[in-house]
Amino acid sequence: MTDQRDLQSIAESVGAHIAEGDLLAKGLGVRLVEIAPGRATAVMTVRPDMSNAAGVCHGGATFTLADTAFGFACNAHDRLALAQTCTITYTGAARIGNELTAVAEEVALVRRSGIYDVTVTDQNGKVVAVFRGQSRQIKGQPTIGAGSFTP
Amino acid sequence: MTDQRDLQSIAESVGAHIAEGDLLAKGLGVRLVEIAPGRATAVMTVRPDMSNAAGVCHGGATFTLADTAFGFACNAHDRLALAQTCTITYTGAARIGNELTAVAEEVALVRRSGIYDVTVTDQNGKVVAVFRGQSRQIKGQPTIGAGSFTP
Amino acid sequence: MTDQRDLQSIAESVGAHIAEGDLLAKGLGVRLVEIAPGRATAVMTVRPDMSNAAGVCHGGATFTLADTAFGFACNAHDRLALAQTCTITYTGAARIGNELTAVAEEVALVRRSGIYDVTVTDQNGKVVAVFRGQSRQIKGQPTIGAGSFTP
Amino acid sequence: MTDQRDLQSIAESVGAHIAEGDLLAKGLGVRLVEIAPGRATAVMTVRPDMSNAAGVCHGGATFTLADTAFGFACNAHDRLALAQTCTITYTGAARIGNELTAVAEEVALVRRSGIYDVTVTDQNGKVVAVFRGQSRQIKGQPTIGAGSFTP
Repeated sequence: MTDQRDLQSIAESVGAHIAEGDLLAKGLGVRLVEIAPGRATAVMTVRPDMSNAAGVCHGGATFTLADTAFGFACNAHDRLALAQTCTITYTGAARIGNELTAVAEEVALVRRSGIYDVTVTDQNGKVVAVFRGQSRQIKGQPTIGAGSFTP
Repeated sequence: MTDQRDLQSIAESVGAHIAEGDLLAKGLGVRLVEIAPGRATAVMTVRPDMSNAAGVCHGGATFTLADTAFGFACNAHDRLALAQTCTITYTGAARIGNELTAVAEEVALVRRSGIYDVTVTDQNGKVVAVFRGQSRQIKGQPTIGAGSFTP
Repeated sequence: MTDQRDLQSIAESVGAHIAEGDLLAKGLGVRLVEIAPGRATAVMTVRPDMSNAAGVCHGGATFTLADTAFGFACNAHDRLALAQTCTITYTGAARIGNELTAVAEEVALVRRSGIYDVTVTDQNGKVVAVFRGQSRQIKGQPTIGAGSFTP
Repeated sequence: MTDQRDLQSIAESVGAHIAEGDLLAKGLGVRLVEIAPGRATAVMTVRPDMSNAAGVCHGGATFTLADTAFGFACNAHDRLALAQTCTITYTGAARIGNELTAVAEEVALVRRSGIYDVTVTDQNGKVVAVFRGQSRQIKGQPTIGAGSFTP
């Protein structure tokens, strides 16, 4: 019988698998700090090689951090979930050296379609971006392997 | 007096500056292949280190390519422009080894607020993502240097 | 055998059914002016009772026009399609008395998931809003009746 | 000197002005039930004339309810604010006769740019839509009158 502790241990197992296999996130130094069913927190320190031409953190790096937290959260049920649409709004500059924290939370999961909100803050708690991801579960389990990746 | 040729040469100068200074895009191998006022094309080959845990191109890499093309296009007037909100919808998987092309086009530019559409296709012309970026011009010129980066 | 003319006549039949049954759009005076597979044009004159507190066209009225054009376009294949996520960006004020035209076009249709872009212009050709809708086909046909409406 | 009570009474004054002047919302029976700085709750009963061709609540009606709650919340500081981009995701069908409640909350307000989240639930607490609005303050005050409505 599945109880709350099982769901938490499933989520942690998913977290370990994704953290191991997600090479882009690894390369950017993204670390998973907490995962639970429908929820995850990831952190990233903004390195000089993540800057844009204006010398601040590239929007693509902030997006990747938020998207990775979203990916942990929406896969935490161990049902393979793909991103369909993601929207990010930048509310402040993230600077080189900042430590960014992305907290992803499930807003709704109806059948196989989910909505997740991610808030990205810097080390002072300033919100630098808000992100909303829409996911769809397909066949497969993150801890075992993929189904079809065609949406 | 500004004529069409001047605008094109300004856009190309902006392109050179951003291509030089955008370290995240450089690290991902993004190359600018064409720039004009309000328009840009950039390409990227999906490398193994850009994969997610499912072994296909990470959404963050596709986003960064699209966002970079958007950044070239909205800055091509040599008025510094920041991303406000970006939305990406994935329409197909991008696989390791694929060569992705992102074409960004200006949909509207009203005073300082712009809308840009970016389509990302693979080497077979299959659309893998559509992206829409909303920009806002602030003080400063990409070819000279930044103004304030607080939105 | 299905040929191009059949697809067009199916689209027109869908158009007639939706135009008849869409009571909100009817109440706002939305008229379908053209429909084809994956494509539709609808118009609406902004009436005084569609204004917001600032005395211009309410964003909800502009959205409803765009959404209705999107609904025509994504159902035109006579496979029942529901909106999942819609994004609208306002690029200029629509004023009382303006005649607005919404043109919806299919950007991508992969299996059952579609993306449609809608541009809303006033009678002078000024773009007042851009809209992007994401649809998902479910069982059922607009010309016959609905399947399940739970997304 | 402005204290908390003043801000609340300003918000209520804005609420009364907008509720009086927003004719589209009035026509759809939208009622403001609570307003505070950066926050508002509005309700609407889904009438038969708000249905789409599938016989359920038109997405445009749900959007208008959410957008109206957003408008109250982002104007509650008595600084005139316009919608720039709004995204709605439908998570369940709203049916004729349902009483929908939209709660709008300020997520971020940086200088003149704001982000507001709106959740729309039915009378059973089921979430039928989530909405995110991006606003920009311009000159003018809702309680006095408008500035320029060109974004």
